[in-house]
Amino acid sequence: METLPLPFEKALVTGAAGFIGSHLCDRLLQAGIDVVGFDNLSTGREEFLSGALGDPRFRLVRGDTQDPAALEEAMRGRQFVFHLAANADVRFGLQHPRRDLEQNTLATFNALEAARRAGVKGFAFSSTGSVYGEPAVHPTPEDAPFPVQTSLYGASKLAGEGLVQAYAEGFGMRGFVFRFVSILGERYSHGHVFDFHRKLRADPSRLEVLGNGRQRKSYLYVQDCVDAIFPALARAEGGLNTFNLGTDEACEVDDSVGWICEAMGLKPEILHTGGERGWVGDSPFILLDTSRIRALGWKPSLSIREGVLKTLRYLRDNPWLLEKR
Amino acid sequence: METLPLPFEKALVTGAAGFIGSHLCDRLLQAGIDVVGFDNLSTGREEFLSGALGDPRFRLVRGDTQDPAALEEAMRGRQFVFHLAANADVRFGLQHPRRDLEQNTLATFNALEAARRAGVKGFAFSSTGSVYGEPAVHPTPEDAPFPVQTSLYGASKLAGEGLVQAYAEGFGMRGFVFRFVSILGERYSHGHVFDFHRKLRADPSRLEVLGNGRQRKSYLYVQDCVDAIFPALARAEGGLNTFNLGTDEACEVDDSVGWICEAMGLKPEILHTGGERGWVGDSPFILLDTSRIRALGWKPSLSIREGVLKTLRYLRDNPWLLEKR
Repeated sequence: METLPLPFEKALVTGAAGFIGSHLCDRLLQAGIDVVGFDNLSTGREEFLSGALGDPRFRLVRGDTQDPAALEEAMRGRQFVFHLAANADVRFGLQHPRRDLEQNTLATFNALEAARRAGVKGFAFSSTGSVYGEPAVHPTPEDAPFPVQTSLYGASKLAGEGLVQAYAEGFGMRGFVFRFVSILGERYSHGHVFDFHRKLRADPSRLEVLGNGRQRKSYLYVQDCVDAIFPALARAEGGLNTFNLGTDEACEVDDSVGWICEAMGLKPEILHTGGERGWVGDSPFILLDTSRIRALGWKPSLSIREGVLKTLRYLRDNPWLLEKR
Repeated sequence: METLPLPFEKALVTGAAGFIGSHLCDRLLQAGIDVVGFDNLSTGREEFLSGALGDPRFRLVRGDTQDPAALEEAMRGRQFVFHLAANADVRFGLQHPRRDLEQNTLATFNALEAARRAGVKGFAFSSTGSVYGEPAVHPTPEDAPFPVQTSLYGASKLAGEGLVQAYAEGFGMRGFVFRFVSILGERYSHGHVFDFHRKLRADPSRLEVLGNGRQRKSYLYVQDCVDAIFPALARAEGGLNTFNLGTDEACEVDDSVGWICEAMGLKPEILHTGGERGWVGDSPFILLDTSRIRALGWKPSLSIREGVLKTLRYLRDNPWLLEKR
């Protein structure tokens, strides 16, 4: 996809050592942007930045989004902030109700407030299709009916969106909200392909699948996700822009299970835990309407199946990711 | 209005000494409910609870919503929580960006988490029509298009709603979200009628009005607001219910100015500061669709004009409210 010129030269990426963040750093550097990466390396991996760290225009700051002063210090002189640092586990909120609040809502407030104090003029936020809860409309557009949250994760990201919007309106900062489906691809280190791959390596004879396997989900390849940044930032107008990012297809969980088993050459017994949802708060059908970002010239290059297979090859080639840290 | 039986006997009200909270305490006591009031008395007034404090079924706990342990302790043995404590100033968020986050978002999290730990089964939350931002649809229904926040206040209340929803879904707590327009009536101690009344007492010759005076707003009388609790809690089904509360009319700011000046017998020069909005983030047109709560048997008893005049009489009879504390 064409790399459009971005309206800034110096950016900061929180969650820079994460799955999506590290790809974003790579792509920004390729586009000639000077990048400060900010990460506490709690779930991020310095290995993911091995390319970026060799680039003189990249600098990694080891810092925490719970530390407002560290954020502000790192943002000095930056023109644009990509806030990707987050607790990305949608499933386990009920086991530790404060985690999404702190790592998502409060972290986003801290990042916005640091950006404002540091004079940063633009702010992009990685939100999620989970903010739609169980949407009444599929494919779900950005202006779908007022949602009802079903998870603490979704609630924490919705709160983050509201903060980005209020900062954009109140302080004249340009705001970008990207609502992702689940992302797949190189450096993927948590999620269903990761879990299934790990379980099947441990026991190729059986595979437990949460729910009835009929949940319909949408997935997007990480390079396609990062691609969307360019047309969004270069072409969108207005102070606050919100974009869904996803493929225009959904697959059933059992479809993905089939692709994974086939690629691994396995025929395990599939054990469904049952129920329409994989866990309390799981959305049984996610499919986002992406016509808004498509109208700016973006489209994904890989289908869900291609993304799953690419992810699987990556996991096979990087067994170190399965090791406990 | 008929007082329907509520599905609990012991309740806790945060913000019990506040404008709406104190009326709610009075009404719950009248309905035979045993009430614990929780308030830090920072903006609440013990005077507002003079009736409640004489009732043996009422107990006031002086505590802060930033103190999770105090909340949990006070909620022990309660079956239902009304969380009304909040920073209720929509206008001044930009001057202290953390205040709405702390007093609204974090306070709501603290109240929910305390309720969960204390085994409370139901939770009602005072939200606001401000969560609709600048709505595309008027009158605005509860399922209006996905909103864009224009104020830190709206963002903090939206975040609170998301938390109530996620707790309802995740922990099986019944959740009630009430989106109020501005409330008027006895014990009213901040807002436009208060400000105009105070300014006109200080200088009857002139009155500064924010914006162009053409902003259309909806207001609701506090007794009508508290009335809505009963049909909502007694008749609504499902785990999570959201209700708009307001009159089915909007008035222009200048209409209200006219009623106030007439009632005070004054003809001041009106000085508009100009612009469609009273302040950055102000919504120039608020009118909520209340058919959902009306379908359960509720309707307001007073028009906006009647509410304004009643408020003005109250302010005239209670000059102590104008004194600095």
